[in-house]
Amino acid sequence: MGYEFDEDTAVLAAGEGRFEGVVTDRWNIGDRPNGGYLMALGLRALGAVLPHPDLLTVTAHFLRPPRPGPAEVHVEHVRSGRTLSTGEARLCSGQREFLRMVAASTDFDSAEEAAAGLATPPPDLPPPEACERIGGEDSPLTLGVTIAQRLEVRYPPDELGWTRGEPSAEARVRGWIRFADGRPVDPLGLIQFLDGVPPALFAVGMLDPLPTIELTAHVRARPAPGWLAFDVRDTDLVHGYVEETAMLWDSEGRAVATSRQIAKLIGWS
Amino acid sequence: MGYEFDEDTAVLAAGEGRFEGVVTDRWNIGDRPNGGYLMALGLRALGAVLPHPDLLTVTAHFLRPPRPGPAEVHVEHVRSGRTLSTGEARLCSGQREFLRMVAASTDFDSAEEAAAGLATPPPDLPPPEACERIGGEDSPLTLGVTIAQRLEVRYPPDELGWTRGEPSAEARVRGWIRFADGRPVDPLGLIQFLDGVPPALFAVGMLDPLPTIELTAHVRARPAPGWLAFDVRDTDLVHGYVEETAMLWDSEGRAVATSRQIAKLIGWS
Repeated sequence: MGYEFDEDTAVLAAGEGRFEGVVTDRWNIGDRPNGGYLMALGLRALGAVLPHPDLLTVTAHFLRPPRPGPAEVHVEHVRSGRTLSTGEARLCSGQREFLRMVAASTDFDSAEEAAAGLATPPPDLPPPEACERIGGEDSPLTLGVTIAQRLEVRYPPDELGWTRGEPSAEARVRGWIRFADGRPVDPLGLIQFLDGVPPALFAVGMLDPLPTIELTAHVRARPAPGWLAFDVRDTDLVHGYVEETAMLWDSEGRAVATSRQIAKLIGWS
Repeated sequence: MGYEFDEDTAVLAAGEGRFEGVVTDRWNIGDRPNGGYLMALGLRALGAVLPHPDLLTVTAHFLRPPRPGPAEVHVEHVRSGRTLSTGEARLCSGQREFLRMVAASTDFDSAEEAAAGLATPPPDLPPPEACERIGGEDSPLTLGVTIAQRLEVRYPPDELGWTRGEPSAEARVRGWIRFADGRPVDPLGLIQFLDGVPPALFAVGMLDPLPTIELTAHVRARPAPGWLAFDVRDTDLVHGYVEETAMLWDSEGRAVATSRQIAKLIGWS
């Protein structure tokens, strides 16, 4: 322990399929806790119940924003077979469910490594030391965004026009991400990072809030230590909903996690 | 009624949150019912319970193949807010759950039409009449694939090398799809089509079975009548699992549905 992410996602067993944790306000965007953080809290409880060690796929439906404070996680072990385990988690705050998740885990050691030729290559980025953080204590970009103190995100300097009122033509943000306090990345960290990067609509100058309705993430390999490269794209803004696809590569250049979410653009109609 | 898809996905209310249906063998790939067909069966029951009319997002975890025959669908109405309803369905055959789904619906009429500039354009395909069906009664490509009689799928002639033992370099299949018996497409049909097209690994000559572990689909608009264009890609074959992304466009060229699934390559290790 000792790392913020582990402290803030810790759960305690409190009876058959029941766990207790605390939703902190250290991973907020405005007054809402970040979705990746809440998923990690639920995945801690699922990980304690599912026998296979490696998270493969998780879907989260965000039902309402939770209040900071005590939370309960109710876990159901749905099924285990030889290569897969499936479970469900319901996260509640003050008796009200705020997050429903279904996840499956496997054992990556029981299969061989990647086949050649079907691996998505990492984006072509300047190295992290040549990239820039945004915001800071006095910046409106990170005002009230407590998660910005927990995650260190760096962007290629020539892709930061949107922070200066010069939007790009493409709804895409790319860069590097890691925990600010030096916590090593692991599969739960991947889930946090997938939803911890900014919405790609920011790049085209659409800075409205974009709450996630549903997010599905796939973890494809255990990540190597170091920076993660990310690439996020938004497509198909229709009926006020937008599709967002994110991908992460580890320091060895392997695609280690991907996600797709449907989010609702607030203020758009 | 009268159309095969409606007959085979019909459910009858049988008590509080409980529905009865029948899994037929008319949508099989080998001895396994197709996942999109099973999802449509569950979505019929969910649609009878959720007050918002338009399916927006659905995730399915395939726990085991069901036996053909009677099935029960247990539906939970998780939450309804102003713009969204969320529900869960558990599909059981002989007391054993074979499919767990979580879905959310909305009302597309309550939002305006698509914003310009963020719509994925359809693939550049020859028209359906210049495209070809594959298989047929005597072909090994469709032997035991009863779903091939239910769905009419046509491919650009110059992208069919894989059916003649001349695989492509790219794991991608594209073409046109519709119900063979003339049933008009609707959101449930979109879900069927997203999982009714062939795996894109076929194009690179990998013809092994590829059962779906988890599939998430997003419906983005009510489809116009007529053929649907599809584009399916497989990426990141790692640890025996592959990522598959599919997209559908209606006859007016609008992106109406998309899906991403994680599937397990049987016979690969």
